[in-house]
Amino acid sequence: MDHLRRIGALRRKLTRSGIHGLLVTHLPDVRYLCGFTGSSAALAITRRSARMFTDGRYATQAAEEVQVARTDVEIVTSPAATAAVQWLAAQPGIETAGFDPNRTTVAELARLKEGLPSRLRKAFLTSLPDPLVERLRLVKDDDELAIMREAAHMGCKLFEHILTFIRPGLREVEVAAELEHRARLMGAEGMSFDTIVASGPRSALPHGHATTQRLPRKGFVTLDFGIIHKGYCSDMTRTVRLGSPTTRERNAYHAVLEAQEAGVAAVSSGVSSGDVDEAARSVLRREGLAEAFSHSTGHGVGLEIHEAPRIGAKQKTRLQAGMVITIEPGIYLPGEFGVRIEDMVAVTRTGGEILTPAPKALIQL
Amino acid sequence: MDHLRRIGALRRKLTRSGIHGLLVTHLPDVRYLCGFTGSSAALAITRRSARMFTDGRYATQAAEEVQVARTDVEIVTSPAATAAVQWLAAQPGIETAGFDPNRTTVAELARLKEGLPSRLRKAFLTSLPDPLVERLRLVKDDDELAIMREAAHMGCKLFEHILTFIRPGLREVEVAAELEHRARLMGAEGMSFDTIVASGPRSALPHGHATTQRLPRKGFVTLDFGIIHKGYCSDMTRTVRLGSPTTRERNAYHAVLEAQEAGVAAVSSGVSSGDVDEAARSVLRREGLAEAFSHSTGHGVGLEIHEAPRIGAKQKTRLQAGMVITIEPGIYLPGEFGVRIEDMVAVTRTGGEILTPAPKALIQL
Repeated sequence: MDHLRRIGALRRKLTRSGIHGLLVTHLPDVRYLCGFTGSSAALAITRRSARMFTDGRYATQAAEEVQVARTDVEIVTSPAATAAVQWLAAQPGIETAGFDPNRTTVAELARLKEGLPSRLRKAFLTSLPDPLVERLRLVKDDDELAIMREAAHMGCKLFEHILTFIRPGLREVEVAAELEHRARLMGAEGMSFDTIVASGPRSALPHGHATTQRLPRKGFVTLDFGIIHKGYCSDMTRTVRLGSPTTRERNAYHAVLEAQEAGVAAVSSGVSSGDVDEAARSVLRREGLAEAFSHSTGHGVGLEIHEAPRIGAKQKTRLQAGMVITIEPGIYLPGEFGVRIEDMVAVTRTGGEILTPAPKALIQL
Repeated sequence: MDHLRRIGALRRKLTRSGIHGLLVTHLPDVRYLCGFTGSSAALAITRRSARMFTDGRYATQAAEEVQVARTDVEIVTSPAATAAVQWLAAQPGIETAGFDPNRTTVAELARLKEGLPSRLRKAFLTSLPDPLVERLRLVKDDDELAIMREAAHMGCKLFEHILTFIRPGLREVEVAAELEHRARLMGAEGMSFDTIVASGPRSALPHGHATTQRLPRKGFVTLDFGIIHKGYCSDMTRTVRLGSPTTRERNAYHAVLEAQEAGVAAVSSGVSSGDVDEAARSVLRREGLAEAFSHSTGHGVGLEIHEAPRIGAKQKTRLQAGMVITIEPGIYLPGEFGVRIEDMVAVTRTGGEILTPAPKALIQL
């Protein structure tokens, strides 16, 4: 990972914004900038130097992970963010330091101010109008894309495996357990979110986490899962069929598939995310299923499972090459069934690269 | 779960604080109060009524889960917290509504204010001096204690199983995978945090998540893991030995064990959490290992893996019967080895009930 380049790009943004120093407390942002993977840290960045603060538990790990980013490490007993702000205030020529208002609680801001000399309490910390690091993270660099391709590929392998495992009578949690166990053995660091295995009428729950319910002889099974690989999340959904579908079920599946493919086809650099949402949504609207599609079409993914941009109705963010998003329309008919199909798609200059090329035609098991 | 009793207790606190309405956005708090387990919700509570706001994905689930708490459900397309605040502002007799400054970001507060009529922007939302719901959650009720006993017991069963599995040459991730797979088959909803399997010199990393490193022929293996059962977290650590330890290693193990037992023995209603920390810490100090014990002695656990109270040096919180805490001293000698031993302990009127009664004598495999 080219952390130096990232910190360099951030410094250019700071200079343009007239901000002298930056406090970074959101852990995925810290990891992105300096490589630290621990669970407690704050990073302080000025135009000249960078220093990461963490506690004694992470002394060894921080020294190992952060050296490549040419970031100093300081082990502190006070809260890391407090120490970072105090350090920023002590640097020559730093009159203001930015913080991310989306990642700083009201109470935390009050504590950070209390830790400053009284003359600095009012104006030293300034709310960033724009989440600078998150904005950098929007567009993945080549290292990140390579890892995310691997992560998505591991997801596809898992799907391939689970098709040989699923059968009526198994409990949903047994399917989730098998998926997660395989993921670990494949080298995943963990799952990127609670695995969804929703079968029969439970497939009508968009977020139906695996339960002890047994898979029916006939019905849909929605599998929505992701792994973490080198810190990056994968995310994919397929809905498979136990027993033969009714005509109504088959039509619903094909409507979702058509919507999903229309969404993917709309992806390209320069297109607004609202237009991608509309491409998928209009297919379901035409089929009389607009009401049954009760969520957004997708979201960005990366170090976090949900990142910017949001792919939803009327969203104005323009897609850029290097963004990685999900396209995941679904329909949910309470008490009956649901269908969702999801790919991860990397935005390219001329279109979208599907990172999860597992089969999408209706699979009947 | 007796949600009505909890909401009742909260209302009494509101009345005593002179607060007319309350906005609850932290999801474990929402779950605690009304039983909703989804990933997007806000709860508004007045002295007379309670209403939960969520989005269309959760319409069916919310209706099912929340009815017992006699809480209304409203499905909204705007952000749930914004809708909740607007609803509170429209209730008769509500002049102020409290929010938790520890769970509300600076940006979120600004958005919530923007959603209010201009005359209410300044004073309607008021920062709670005290995290009311978190304070209720500190002391577990009998339903919660019963679940947490089950969760901790499942953890012990997993430890028992993994002892039959561990052998030199296995990768750390294979041990984690086995543990997590078993947990799922046992009915766990998931793991409560990233499983730590840290072997050989990696045992000196307090937070050494499982890697592809192979277990050595000789060395310590620290296993720190927890499951989620009915929403509640378990947490336990044992350090086992592959091959026979040196005298230095054996002494270190026994020092940690003595510290851990001293910590557990100090637990009782009315004791300050700082005194519990000191009971454990003083043992390691006496052994010349004060520097090697680089973290706090423990933390509260419940719906979240890390809750109040913190069991650390000089902490003043008085333990109360019904609190559930961890006691987990450890020592870390970089480049050499580390040892940590952790139990979950429920505070009782006269002492502490160990919820994780797995063996703590040095196990040599």
